[in-house]
Amino acid sequence: MGYGKDDELAINTIRLLAVDATFKANSGHPGAPMGMAPVSHVLFNKFMTFNPKNPDWVNRDRFVLSNGHGCMLQYALLHLFGYGVSLDDIKAFRSVDSCTPGHPEALDTPGIEVTTGPLGQGFANAVGLAIAQASTAAHFNKPDFDIINNHTFFFFGDGCAMEGIASEAASTAGHLQLGNLIGIYDDNHISIDGDTNCAFTEDVMKRFEAYGWHTQWVKKGDDDLEGIEKAIAAAKEVKDKPSMIKLTTTIGFGSLLQGTGGVHGNALKADDCKQVKSKFGFNPEESFVVPQKVYDMYHKHADEGAAAEQEWNQLFEKYGSKHKAEYDDLKRRLSGKLPEGWEKKLPTYKPTDKEVASRKLSEAVLEAIHDVVPDLIGGSADLTGSNNTRWKDAVDFQPPSLGIGDRAGRYIRYGVREHAMAGIMNGISAYGTLIPFGGTFLNFMSYAAGSVRLSSLSHCRVIYVATHDSIGLGEDGPTHQPIETLAHFRALPNMMVWRPADGNETSAAYYIALTSKSTPSILALTRQNLPQLENSTLENGIKGGYVAVENENADITLISSGSEVCICIEAIKYLKEKHNLTARVVSVPCFEVFDTQSKEYRLKVLPDGIPIMSVEAMSTLGWERYSHEQFGLNRFGASGPYKDVYKKFEFTPEGISKRAVATVDFYKGDKVRSPVNRAFQQLI
Amino acid sequence: MGYGKDDELAINTIRLLAVDATFKANSGHPGAPMGMAPVSHVLFNKFMTFNPKNPDWVNRDRFVLSNGHGCMLQYALLHLFGYGVSLDDIKAFRSVDSCTPGHPEALDTPGIEVTTGPLGQGFANAVGLAIAQASTAAHFNKPDFDIINNHTFFFFGDGCAMEGIASEAASTAGHLQLGNLIGIYDDNHISIDGDTNCAFTEDVMKRFEAYGWHTQWVKKGDDDLEGIEKAIAAAKEVKDKPSMIKLTTTIGFGSLLQGTGGVHGNALKADDCKQVKSKFGFNPEESFVVPQKVYDMYHKHADEGAAAEQEWNQLFEKYGSKHKAEYDDLKRRLSGKLPEGWEKKLPTYKPTDKEVASRKLSEAVLEAIHDVVPDLIGGSADLTGSNNTRWKDAVDFQPPSLGIGDRAGRYIRYGVREHAMAGIMNGISAYGTLIPFGGTFLNFMSYAAGSVRLSSLSHCRVIYVATHDSIGLGEDGPTHQPIETLAHFRALPNMMVWRPADGNETSAAYYIALTSKSTPSILALTRQNLPQLENSTLENGIKGGYVAVENENADITLISSGSEVCICIEAIKYLKEKHNLTARVVSVPCFEVFDTQSKEYRLKVLPDGIPIMSVEAMSTLGWERYSHEQFGLNRFGASGPYKDVYKKFEFTPEGISKRAVATVDFYKGDKVRSPVNRAFQQLI
Ligand SMILES: [Ca+2]
Ligand SMILES: [Ca+2]
Repeated sequence: MGYGKDDELAINTIRLLAVDATFKANSGHPGAPMGMAPVSHVLFNKFMTFNPKNPDWVNRDRFVLSNGHGCMLQYALLHLFGYGVSLDDIKAFRSVDSCTPGHPEALDTPGIEVTTGPLGQGFANAVGLAIAQASTAAHFNKPDFDIINNHTFFFFGDGCAMEGIASEAASTAGHLQLGNLIGIYDDNHISIDGDTNCAFTEDVMKRFEAYGWHTQWVKKGDDDLEGIEKAIAAAKEVKDKPSMIKLTTTIGFGSLLQGTGGVHGNALKADDCKQVKSKFGFNPEESFVVPQKVYDMYHKHADEGAAAEQEWNQLFEKYGSKHKAEYDDLKRRLSGKLPEGWEKKLPTYKPTDKEVASRKLSEAVLEAIHDVVPDLIGGSADLTGSNNTRWKDAVDFQPPSLGIGDRAGRYIRYGVREHAMAGIMNGISAYGTLIPFGGTFLNFMSYAAGSVRLSSLSHCRVIYVATHDSIGLGEDGPTHQPIETLAHFRALPNMMVWRPADGNETSAAYYIALTSKSTPSILALTRQNLPQLENSTLENGIKGGYVAVENENADITLISSGSEVCICIEAIKYLKEKHNLTARVVSVPCFEVFDTQSKEYRLKVLPDGIPIMSVEAMSTLGWERYSHEQFGLNRFGASGPYKDVYKKFEFTPEGISKRAVATVDFYKGDKVRSPVNRAFQQLI
Repeated sequence: MGYGKDDELAINTIRLLAVDATFKANSGHPGAPMGMAPVSHVLFNKFMTFNPKNPDWVNRDRFVLSNGHGCMLQYALLHLFGYGVSLDDIKAFRSVDSCTPGHPEALDTPGIEVTTGPLGQGFANAVGLAIAQASTAAHFNKPDFDIINNHTFFFFGDGCAMEGIASEAASTAGHLQLGNLIGIYDDNHISIDGDTNCAFTEDVMKRFEAYGWHTQWVKKGDDDLEGIEKAIAAAKEVKDKPSMIKLTTTIGFGSLLQGTGGVHGNALKADDCKQVKSKFGFNPEESFVVPQKVYDMYHKHADEGAAAEQEWNQLFEKYGSKHKAEYDDLKRRLSGKLPEGWEKKLPTYKPTDKEVASRKLSEAVLEAIHDVVPDLIGGSADLTGSNNTRWKDAVDFQPPSLGIGDRAGRYIRYGVREHAMAGIMNGISAYGTLIPFGGTFLNFMSYAAGSVRLSSLSHCRVIYVATHDSIGLGEDGPTHQPIETLAHFRALPNMMVWRPADGNETSAAYYIALTSKSTPSILALTRQNLPQLENSTLENGIKGGYVAVENENADITLISSGSEVCICIEAIKYLKEKHNLTARVVSVPCFEVFDTQSKEYRLKVLPDGIPIMSVEAMSTLGWERYSHEQFGLNRFGASGPYKDVYKKFEFTPEGISKRAVATVDFYKGDKVRSPVNRAFQQLI
């Protein structure tokens, strides 16, 4: 306690860095940094433990700026505390190839934990970071070795508070009683449309109480540093609930437009910059000024953080001498590597093995590997029995007081909250010790799309178990049958969309998903049974595409994925018998992975000279990349037993053959070129 | 008040129809219908006014089953009250081409207001229906003519309550003080994963109070019919708040598995069917039994509804004699037609007109037509100034008590709630008197994807104003720059995705969007300025694709959309000067509409014999349908001034030309076939 002139100076330095950077970029959001500088000062300088020289230290306190548009606040703090963000970087705010992009991106900037900006995401990420902390602590802490005990702090604004994903995440965090999670709500009464009175008049604190959060209100967030400190200290004392501190602030504090929407998303005008500098006792003619006192104060705290890490390192080495296995395991996890030989546990299948739904095959993988890959922590958005995401003896991750699980449990009951599940998984992944997977129906991946996109952008190793992947789910009907979903996620950069056709392909999907440290995966899995294919092996599967049935002098190549591959294989016989045509079949469980194979290999799979027809029981969009003709479903499905639905839409050997015949006729006499041949390389 | 044996009989009849239908289908959800039959009986028979012979009567009370998996409840009610759902239809539950699909679909079944099943959607739809009622009432009611005064009732379960969209919609409804909205929360303590205790322990009533809802709790929902009636009556008395009644019920009431997850999503076993029939006093050997008494009771209420409509029709005719203009306007609206000559107001542009961002061009359309199309009701998810969705003298749709708008206001402040906005728009559209539009950034359409899909599936005339449509938004960076979004929605059946290149194309997009009664539209619009193109006319634009620059003996066709069309046009000159190549340029503002043109026309636009290269600054997925080579961005963007970002990724005349040269070289000597030629027709 006891705040004075130096604190004020530091706070105003932060504010003015935000003013100068947004002014220079002529773009960005000065309002939130100016309003949130006081709480940032108290939080970072009094409470948070971190070492700017090693932003990856596992037991650091985590900070998430869910209102990511205020990122100049975070860049200023990172710079002032001595992270790898220079004053020149601040000056390059929002310019191409800077480490200070328009919203915080975890990959671009040392000290940024998660990519935020899309509102509400950071909130869910913070819940994920807190879950990961609790889980990791439960697995690794030992008597006298409280090695994992960090807190997760996050800021959120009105925008985040309005977003559904934040509501879902808040309800989840309350249920899970995450005492290590402290959120500070920037109650500044302004959103882009102006006064929040125009759309957001609910009682936010009461809502959070309803979720089971501990709540406090600091009414003078602009200058009551002691009040802020007391509130954060009180929040830290609460161990069985997440905490929310409502902090009433003035957006754009100091600006002529303070307290208005005018200062939210626009740089201050030149004269306003000058007056605010004068008001804060800075030279109005100078920009990007950092008084040495401020550096000194913050570097002192950074040094304390470095010392804390040193101390922790010593403790951890001592831990290693007493708990060698756990020590090795944690070190390994932090390296991102999987345990030696884990892949030998992956189930493999022979063509004579019985038909199994790929959601079941996925379950078999999880059953087989969960012991050998202890990093796995999974769950489902209230579809456990349908997604088959839970291994038999799994324990739920739950607050012990509920009596239905514990903190070491590795199965998360996400509730019917797909979007938060995905955002939470991104946070869990960002913590660095766990590999999250989560289930829902493929169709409801769309509910989570905002977070799924960030899995890709942030390079999170996250696995989406997306069952009921087509009209093959049958009776639930069009509301549940994905048509556009695979095209959507296939178009998303850095996302592996897998649609395995059988057991070996399912194991291959898991193999690549788990060994790809910086690429998330969606596993589209069937409700209905699938036969084990002749040429399907782990080796073939991990290529993303391979020849499932070869035939010399083929008239047509049928290319397909998932549950339609076996129907294409049936069609070979039908085509031969009824039309005297020879077909070969290619299975492409994953576009993204197939695309990374050599051109030579891809041309072997999809050779020149033969027309190619794709078969997938959903939108044909994107299949043009691999085929000359496409058989798919560019309309909504139907409710009925799945065999009836397949028949209605002609996904049968007959229906495929009819179109294959038309394709062969159409291209007869043409010098057909494989679509693998391209005139130029794509920008990827 | 006063309930007896007949009521019990009716309730058990409903329950057993759900038991029999799910048993026969061997699929579906008996639990919710069995638990919610009592409240349905009271609500439908005592409170709701409707005429089964005319499900389209505008002033009917609306009912939405947000927990749509319980649809057998609704089908049973529709049948019993005499809607066009026969007992045979009930027997055909969940079979192909029945009018009783696995989840309620507005298009399939008379009496179903909105398509539900994806959880939380119905909740948002109900809010939209209530908004539409309030708006329509404000516009059309006159002293002595309370012609629009219906209520919207809806059921929702734990799943809906957990979904973010429902949270967003509930907060919105509370803010808007929608007194005509009454939700009944099926508090049955069961979700698919079992006891809600595993994931959902928040205080739901308190949360709704925090949103500003009136709340009540009926603790004995299985049999306290009087309590239910009292609660609904009390809710109707509350005029300045939406109402939520928490109704504690026993899922699967009567089943041996009642109160457990076992009865949620699986048909009862044969012996359980029998015991429950015996328990309810029905013959255990019979199925699909409806005692005549039950028909009589419900048909009596239906007759009262028919009489109410008759009375209303008389009132409406009288209204017509006093308020001719309003009468005509409401009649016209209900027909789905737009006012005569409205399209003459659409702005048109000459090539010499100045450069304007297409978000501004969209604003100009709204400014020009809002008077002549009074059906329009718009808004934005807290991005009004960025989406340019508000005409100058617009009044906000607000509760009058806030003093910032009124019920006749046609501008909705959705807050940062993209998903609810979309779900609410679907509900507004379903009411039948309004055409909703709503804005957000194109990238955040992904947050709304769950509802956008239902706009398409339910044939809602809804317009999404999706601005900041590419890396052209510049500084906000990769978190805000869509890459996969257009591919996603282009793959969605019955969705028109427009990406206009200039003013006339923007007007064309609105023309088609507004005149397509059963197809929603997404308008992808730029932040940056665009020139007015030479060949762009309303007539060309409404074809979805046309030749923007023709050139005889062209070496290459460049096909593009939106902001990249003008760069392609610039590239023509560059290609000629630097490479002596002749290029022609095609603009395709809308795939879906272009696809409906004659093959002859499409071949004129994309002729045989010339290689075609697409140019769009986002995922290339899908452009293979129209081109031989694709220039796009199959990676995430960058934060910086937009011209720098375009340059970084080579979306410049030079960058386009480089790839055009490679394309021409690659296809030299080939007999290039236009991709318009196809071997067979797609299933659409
Ligand atoms: Ca705010
Ligand atoms: Ca429930």
